Amino acid sequence: MATKQRYYIQSQQIREHSIKIEGEDVHHIKNVMRMKIHDTVFCFDEQGIVYESEIVAITDHILLAIKKQGQEHTELSKNITIAQGLVRREKVEEVIKRLVELGCKEYIPVQMNRSIVKPIKDKTMRWETIIKEASEQSHRTSMMKVQQPISWQDFFTYARNYDCCLFAHLGEETPHLKTYLSTCKQDKVLIVVGPEGGFDQSEVINLKKHGFLPVGLGNRILRTETAPLFIMSACSYELGE
Amino acid sequence: MATKQRYYIQSQQIREHSIKIEGEDVHHIKNVMRMKIHDTVFCFDEQGIVYESEIVAITDHILLAIKKQGQEHTELSKNITIAQGLVRREKVEEVIKRLVELGCKEYIPVQMNRSIVKPIKDKTMRWETIIKEASEQSHRTSMMKVQQPISWQDFFTYARNYDCCLFAHLGEETPHLKTYLSTCKQDKVLIVVGPEGGFDQSEVINLKKHGFLPVGLGNRILRTETAPLFIMSACSYELGE
Repeated sequence: MATKQRYYIQSQQIREHSIKIEGEDVHHIKNVMRMKIHDTVFCFDEQGIVYESEIVAITDHILLAIKKQGQEHTELSKNITIAQGLVRREKVEEVIKRLVELGCKEYIPVQMNRSIVKPIKDKTMRWETIIKEASEQSHRTSMMKVQQPISWQDFFTYARNYDCCLFAHLGEETPHLKTYLSTCKQDKVLIVVGPEGGFDQSEVINLKKHGFLPVGLGNRILRTETAPLFIMSACSYELGE
Repeated sequence: MATKQRYYIQSQQIREHSIKIEGEDVHHIKNVMRMKIHDTVFCFDEQGIVYESEIVAITDHILLAIKKQGQEHTELSKNITIAQGLVRREKVEEVIKRLVELGCKEYIPVQMNRSIVKPIKDKTMRWETIIKEASEQSHRTSMMKVQQPISWQDFFTYARNYDCCLFAHLGEETPHLKTYLSTCKQDKVLIVVGPEGGFDQSEVINLKKHGFLPVGLGNRILRTETAPLFIMSACSYELGE
């Protein structure tokens, strides 16, 4: 449907032909978008259904009457997950926001030897707000998952869920990411990026031992916060979706 | 050579087997990197020559003795230029930084109908500093050009320098960027992105009239500051460079 602002809703907010908006979104619709009775609001749910609806009541909540609904397909056909050495808060937030737009399914911050920040738990609430907003803006119909920062050991346990595991690596001998992606048949792809300063040597050995394949990202050195955006752009581009 | 910090130098700084560093870089080498006599410094020039050199004197300038030199190829084989509707300063700076890393040759801010900021002249000094730093960090050997913001009319005059002109466009009927890039034989490619809110209808008509082809960037709506990063990532990925 239209390219307007959208609001993510959960199934329990829908009752027959109406939608009840509560919480932060009420403020956004009333005070940021300054919408009035009869204005059109677009909502979407986890199933990829987009609801074109009309405002019928504005109190401490907002009541919408559903006018039209339709299925949308804005998700990539593969599950692409990006793991990254833990980096500073502002950078993580920037990366998360862009990864949502680019269609990433899951983001995993990993404690690595050269990570200069310590993992802070309970950042996920804030991250989820960023993800919700970026999903609404980019018209995604599924929320990117974001993990609490995990340890290097737990990371390898988690990686067993994936069919294809790659890691971004410098070096002239390393095959370009394109070599794998352009022929990739697997549906669940995990790609790991180092923190600032990159993986240390023991980590590279460990990655290879666990079956991760090294891939190059081109002839230039990308910052750790640029690498995930390059990778997700490449995946989305390769799939043409 | 190594993946260390590098310093961009101009040919007049080289005298036989030595390099003279002046200005801001002296502070960076002395106080940020805390380097001493005999430490190794990597420099590069506009011709793509990388100089491995040793510090031989530190005064108000720094004198380096060249130990080794070699040609490097970190530039994309095509000239990819990104033009974008004028956006806010922080966003322009963020975009410029990432475009340098991703191998973009030139960035052109263009005044468009929905640009919410007015063009400010003389930002180029600041932009050039950002470009120099990002080039040093990403190991580029040529400086991305950045234009003063130009008008919509001047933009079309300038676009005549390009063999292939594309513009990012929403809509289900629009062929994906990949359709063109994967078969593109042209060397000079110009890709235009709208400001926040996108191109208006008259601009779309104008672009088509001037021979610009619409391309889609995938099924999700990208923010105006994400679109250039997606496009440059796609170009770099497609070239495998």
